[in-house]
Amino acid sequence: MPAPLQILARDPGSRARAGILSTGHGDVRTPAFVPLATKATVKGLVPAEVRDLGYDMVLGNTYHLFLDPGHDRIERFGGLHEFMRWDQPIITDSGGFQVFSMGHGTVADEIKGRAAHGGQRHGKTLEITEDGVRFRSHIDGSQRFLAPETSMEIQASLRSDIALVFDECTPFNVTRDYTARSTERTHRWLQRCLDWHGRHGPEGQLVYGIVQGGVHEDLRKASAETIAASGADGIAIGGSLGADKPQMYEVVDWATSVLGGAAETAPRHLLGIGDIDDLIRGVELGIDTFDCAMPTRLGRHGVALIPAPDRRWRVDLTASRWRDSDEPIFDGCPCPTCAAGNTRGYLRYLVANRELTGLRLLVVHNLAFVRRLMTRLRDAVLEGRLAEEAAALRGGAAP
Amino acid sequence: MPAPLQILARDPGSRARAGILSTGHGDVRTPAFVPLATKATVKGLVPAEVRDLGYDMVLGNTYHLFLDPGHDRIERFGGLHEFMRWDQPIITDSGGFQVFSMGHGTVADEIKGRAAHGGQRHGKTLEITEDGVRFRSHIDGSQRFLAPETSMEIQASLRSDIALVFDECTPFNVTRDYTARSTERTHRWLQRCLDWHGRHGPEGQLVYGIVQGGVHEDLRKASAETIAASGADGIAIGGSLGADKPQMYEVVDWATSVLGGAAETAPRHLLGIGDIDDLIRGVELGIDTFDCAMPTRLGRHGVALIPAPDRRWRVDLTASRWRDSDEPIFDGCPCPTCAAGNTRGYLRYLVANRELTGLRLLVVHNLAFVRRLMTRLRDAVLEGRLAEEAAALRGGAAP
Repeated sequence: MPAPLQILARDPGSRARAGILSTGHGDVRTPAFVPLATKATVKGLVPAEVRDLGYDMVLGNTYHLFLDPGHDRIERFGGLHEFMRWDQPIITDSGGFQVFSMGHGTVADEIKGRAAHGGQRHGKTLEITEDGVRFRSHIDGSQRFLAPETSMEIQASLRSDIALVFDECTPFNVTRDYTARSTERTHRWLQRCLDWHGRHGPEGQLVYGIVQGGVHEDLRKASAETIAASGADGIAIGGSLGADKPQMYEVVDWATSVLGGAAETAPRHLLGIGDIDDLIRGVELGIDTFDCAMPTRLGRHGVALIPAPDRRWRVDLTASRWRDSDEPIFDGCPCPTCAAGNTRGYLRYLVANRELTGLRLLVVHNLAFVRRLMTRLRDAVLEGRLAEEAAALRGGAAP
Repeated sequence: MPAPLQILARDPGSRARAGILSTGHGDVRTPAFVPLATKATVKGLVPAEVRDLGYDMVLGNTYHLFLDPGHDRIERFGGLHEFMRWDQPIITDSGGFQVFSMGHGTVADEIKGRAAHGGQRHGKTLEITEDGVRFRSHIDGSQRFLAPETSMEIQASLRSDIALVFDECTPFNVTRDYTARSTERTHRWLQRCLDWHGRHGPEGQLVYGIVQGGVHEDLRKASAETIAASGADGIAIGGSLGADKPQMYEVVDWATSVLGGAAETAPRHLLGIGDIDDLIRGVELGIDTFDCAMPTRLGRHGVALIPAPDRRWRVDLTASRWRDSDEPIFDGCPCPTCAAGNTRGYLRYLVANRELTGLRLLVVHNLAFVRRLMTRLRDAVLEGRLAEEAAALRGGAAP
């Protein structure tokens, strides 16, 4: 099989690269942001819109799809692409993040979101062994089991283009010793995933290993080297990325710093990261793809992205101060929402009333914003002017 | 001012007519269904989609827009068209239905919908006098007042193309005597509305009177004649339309039967009616426009329209029996949702999970269904074959 990532250009001043990631359902222009299609849909949008916004790939969530509607059912529909009517690339996560985040007490935001809407919280990690993880479904409290092999089996049924191995998502507040032992188990599970996939994995499905190692330089570097040497098609960076952004950048830096030699051209995915400044820095650190709930979730909560670094690139349109504003989200925004002339005042009214249209208009705006940002970064790498572009964006240039 | 309705053809076997209703924001091809844009949006859709589905006009809700965001605010945005970014015709109701349905105990569905989602139910009619209606806002319990003049003033601020006069929406379970007195008050209020509009109404805004009279033939006919003679631009039929569909058809029949002479060519709107069989019958009875929450509300509740008269033209896609169905909503459906290949199984998954995308896909399907139905009825009138077309549709022909 040819290398999945074709690197077209490298930034001379950083580890950034621009390329094309080839999958069984077409190409992904990298660096790229990958919107979440957690439950077989990018919330509020239809596939044609996601494509028209310029996105090449979406991320499906193994944990959610395993519990409902079930991977066996999706397989009978012909796989996740057929089921959700998206014929471009799909990456699926392993389910590990969800089952561990329930156990470690740092409940995944999506589970919190559900509980906040009146649902009873059933989900709970029951037992973690060398074999796998026993947990309670957050839907009905039933006992379920996920192991490296079952996660790969589910992702095989979903027929995603890129599968992620099942890892222990090591939390932040544990000892170095726990992190070391957890990371070693993650490496053993990586091998089990690759073994299962070698025997049963669908033709053409890529598998990414996941770098763990917490916030410890030696563990992170050793983990990155282990993944790089494992024969996985790509390298994802997961787990606790630190207490703040500087530490997160350091952790990612450690991981990508050791990916030399043959592993240098393997595609790299940064899990769950998607703030505007993090995307810029991630690209500089050599990340090819990112996924995050941020643009879609913010939109559903009435928050729009704007080119304002000092305000975390955000404006909260639920605030009553926008009631009478006839301004656009920001001047000159070319997204479909703003091009249609929607004002902050109108959007404020819609989101305050929880109107579906309002949430959708903001999801479109936010995804369009992030897509333009990534396109600018990619073009800058291709044209050898990333430093300049990154500085402009960090300074508040509108993407 | 020229007559707003140009009648292009009449069905020889019924009172049906096909025409063009001219407004300040363009033409409406009649007979037409008018989707609700209750809170300044057709729920889940953007204006371009509503237009692309073939709709010429939407209906805004005076009660809701008066309470939030306020008609004065919308006026500062340049009116409802500007506010919601819809540049085609808008009809606004008078607010009467909502304030009276709270008082009569038959709470409007939209108010129920709100309460069912955890909101406290504040809304209540406090006092009905000759002057107007005092009521409590369902939003914050504050005391508000609506009278014929205030309703017209609100609709003037909204700058709708068609305003409806403020009427007492007579309930079903009252005496003939109450209905007679109520209808007389409605007629006095009609005159106050027309007087206010004559002095202060915006240029080009049409005003429709509303026929009341409950289920009493003489009262209905007298009311229709009163409205027809009043100088109103159009005639809406409202209030209690009976206990069942046969009675409803009879009530509408009484009203349109007396609209002869100069009043014959005035446009006629049937308020709150939109079931498939009711639309067919309504066209035969000489109705030009209809509004109803049905297609959008059913969609938001996971129900899709299908050409199945024996099943009330409906399939409930929340039912678990559709989990594994790879069928479309119905074979050959040309709507955007079905053309994209979405299956009952996938739609069932989305709506069971309350995914915005699922609700939206069904709203699109349902509005497309109703739009095709109305187009078929209109074309049939234009081509002199309504009886045949109506029989086919009643027999389960797919529109």
